Amino acid sequence: MKVSVFVSPKQGVLDPAGQATLGSLKSLGFDEVSDVRIGKYITLRLEGIDADQAEERVREMCERLLANPIIEDFRVEIER
Amino acid sequence: MKVSVFVSPKQGVLDPAGQATLGSLKSLGFDEVSDVRIGKYITLRLEGIDADQAEERVREMCERLLANPIIEDFRVEIER
Repeated sequence: MKVSVFVSPKQGVLDPAGQATLGSLKSLGFDEVSDVRIGKYITLRLEGIDADQAEERVREMCERLLANPIIEDFRVEIER
Repeated sequence: MKVSVFVSPKQGVLDPAGQATLGSLKSLGFDEVSDVRIGKYITLRLEGIDADQAEERVREMCERLLANPIIEDFRVEIER
């Protein structure tokens, strides 16, 4: 089973990589960009587990390792 | 307008961060995980541009700065 995880900096948390990228985009002439936030796009393959169990387990993986819940939000998407 | 970009290592390209994460998940007891790939989840805010233009511009941003087309795939999603 394939599972996607989207991790992004929480609203209000500083995102230096996003700010640097915004600056680079502007200097390349992409003036229409007003904000950039950079997070992680993680794809997992899981074996021998059903979709409901997978969601619960992957949420646990996020809380323990894949995301930092203090400064990051995460979203889990199971490919059913 | 909000645009999401998903950047991931191409099939067959080594992903050391993914491999390290896979090892850590296994050592935490998540034995059901058989593969991990780590990419970027980028959200952009664009002003004064319609959805069709935005898609073209963001694809150009990916090719020039946000992704490395030699080793990474990307997907652009416009919030219409």
